[in-house]
Amino acid sequence: MKTFFSEDHRRHFPQAELSSGQFVTPFERPARVEYVLERLRGRDFSTPLDPGPCHTGVLEKVHDKGYLDFLKTAWADWIAAGHRGELIPTMFPARRMQQRRPNDIDGKAGYYAMASETAITRGTWRAALSSCACAQAAQRAIVKGDDAAFALCRPPGHHAAIDMFGGYCFLNNAAVAAQMFIDAGAERAAVLDIDFHHGNGTQDIFYERGDVFFASLHGQPEDAFPHFLGYADETGQGAGEGANANFPMPPGTAYDVWSQALDRALDAIRNHGTEALVVSLGTDAFKNDPISFFKLESDDFTDCGRRIAGLGIPAMFVMEGGYAIEAVGINAVNVLEGFLNA
Amino acid sequence: MKTFFSEDHRRHFPQAELSSGQFVTPFERPARVEYVLERLRGRDFSTPLDPGPCHTGVLEKVHDKGYLDFLKTAWADWIAAGHRGELIPTMFPARRMQQRRPNDIDGKAGYYAMASETAITRGTWRAALSSCACAQAAQRAIVKGDDAAFALCRPPGHHAAIDMFGGYCFLNNAAVAAQMFIDAGAERAAVLDIDFHHGNGTQDIFYERGDVFFASLHGQPEDAFPHFLGYADETGQGAGEGANANFPMPPGTAYDVWSQALDRALDAIRNHGTEALVVSLGTDAFKNDPISFFKLESDDFTDCGRRIAGLGIPAMFVMEGGYAIEAVGINAVNVLEGFLNA
Repeated sequence: MKTFFSEDHRRHFPQAELSSGQFVTPFERPARVEYVLERLRGRDFSTPLDPGPCHTGVLEKVHDKGYLDFLKTAWADWIAAGHRGELIPTMFPARRMQQRRPNDIDGKAGYYAMASETAITRGTWRAALSSCACAQAAQRAIVKGDDAAFALCRPPGHHAAIDMFGGYCFLNNAAVAAQMFIDAGAERAAVLDIDFHHGNGTQDIFYERGDVFFASLHGQPEDAFPHFLGYADETGQGAGEGANANFPMPPGTAYDVWSQALDRALDAIRNHGTEALVVSLGTDAFKNDPISFFKLESDDFTDCGRRIAGLGIPAMFVMEGGYAIEAVGINAVNVLEGFLNA
Repeated sequence: MKTFFSEDHRRHFPQAELSSGQFVTPFERPARVEYVLERLRGRDFSTPLDPGPCHTGVLEKVHDKGYLDFLKTAWADWIAAGHRGELIPTMFPARRMQQRRPNDIDGKAGYYAMASETAITRGTWRAALSSCACAQAAQRAIVKGDDAAFALCRPPGHHAAIDMFGGYCFLNNAAVAAQMFIDAGAERAAVLDIDFHHGNGTQDIFYERGDVFFASLHGQPEDAFPHFLGYADETGQGAGEGANANFPMPPGTAYDVWSQALDRALDAIRNHGTEALVVSLGTDAFKNDPISFFKLESDDFTDCGRRIAGLGIPAMFVMEGGYAIEAVGINAVNVLEGFLNA
């Protein structure tokens, strides 16, 4: 299995995440990647390949152009406005308010955000591009005939919506890969999101499309980030009706229940007739994750990979969340090995 | 002119405001009130009166009950959830997301907020009640026959919407007072908001009502907080159509232009046939305000009070924003003196 990784992820490391009313070292930090790399080495995966540059043309097929323009210049605009800290939005277009884009960078930051825990820094855009490039390289490996590929993306992508950043995400790497399968001729593709948090961004991007099926297993939104999307009754809209499947689960959910949801998600994907699968691979369903509430064991991730292989179609894995630092590597690679050894 | 003030405002003083990507001492701080008190003393106003307790029944006429319940227990719920800092929301129900209220306090905080610069602390609810009590006492003074009254409210209120806090505001003191005029038998009341920032909360509360006219002079939303409300084309809806008048103005606006907008706002209020006027008195249109961009001089505030008196109806003044600390007292009292000496 080819793996793809870019050192440029280091360009994104905010000084602080707003959490629990305090500034803390971001849970989503560069060290996460080191643990995955170490585990890949230890388990005899081949050396990760540099993905090359990000092909930006496809980005506009899943993201709003104004949003991409914002991300490109946000840091420069923020500094030009005289701000001294990193870019953190503070004001949002809430209920009954206008959805018109302001002119100034403070207003734009809130307009293009869904959350305020995620800072934009000098290197964020470059890092986001390099992360997306990993997903693109993995997609190309599949198109060329590989059965599996792993994109060690960082920053993650599944919370990034059509025109909003947040939840540590800026560009939706999984959505870009799925779009590339469609562009390469697949009639149907699917994204399976096993990150603990609902993949609200991916859902948003494909919600009115029937060509890309989206299934997500996650902590129920009543109790878990992102809180405002991920209900079971969100089944898609228009051409996308029936092509969105959410499996929200309550605090304390262990693998017996989680794996049943996984099987249902895989059945739905199978029924959709997908030709290529993108897996949003978060490992924060793990029992010791510091910001999640599921109870998966490390071995469960291996079994999860095995079940995904049961679909019998090529799969590319895109790294998303997972914050129990040391275990992130073990659990991510367990999924890959479960898939390979099925 | 009777003035009302409660020492309980001190119970609300967050350690930090999220501003410019950093935690800073909140611009909206207790010292603001001291400067107004000092100026009132220096200009021979009578000693401020304690307003007594807040009458909470009326709050449900302008705010959502679930929102009030949230504010009451937010701090206790936040601490019970194990959080160590003050309550600052980080996740918001943004575009195309669900407007369903989550169960957990993190989710609720985002659901009931429009911004993340405003922290809730142990004493916030008590302080908000005491602030609102000042507006209620001023309203009662007018009903009893006074021509004018001043509520030295803190925290301010005009950004507090039907069911959202933010912009340093929790309970909408001006809206509560206007509601009390209606409850006391007035067929029509009006709120004139001269704070630099649009009174989005007051607009939200009365947007579909014809009995309370709302007029606001403010920095245009394209460039100024609250960014997502305050456009000139927001004229009210349903029964409220025509009872909302916004006067957004660009950076650098001085009194020559501002006073023309004031006259138009006063004409609109006059045409509405209001029997009682509530003035949301912010002083951040002042040229030296640290977070605003108008260019009013201190004498302009005196003239502003004079023009308001030209309506020929009783007026109560409710303190809102203003952050050029020393000048807040001078400019607020200038408005009152302009009104009294007209």
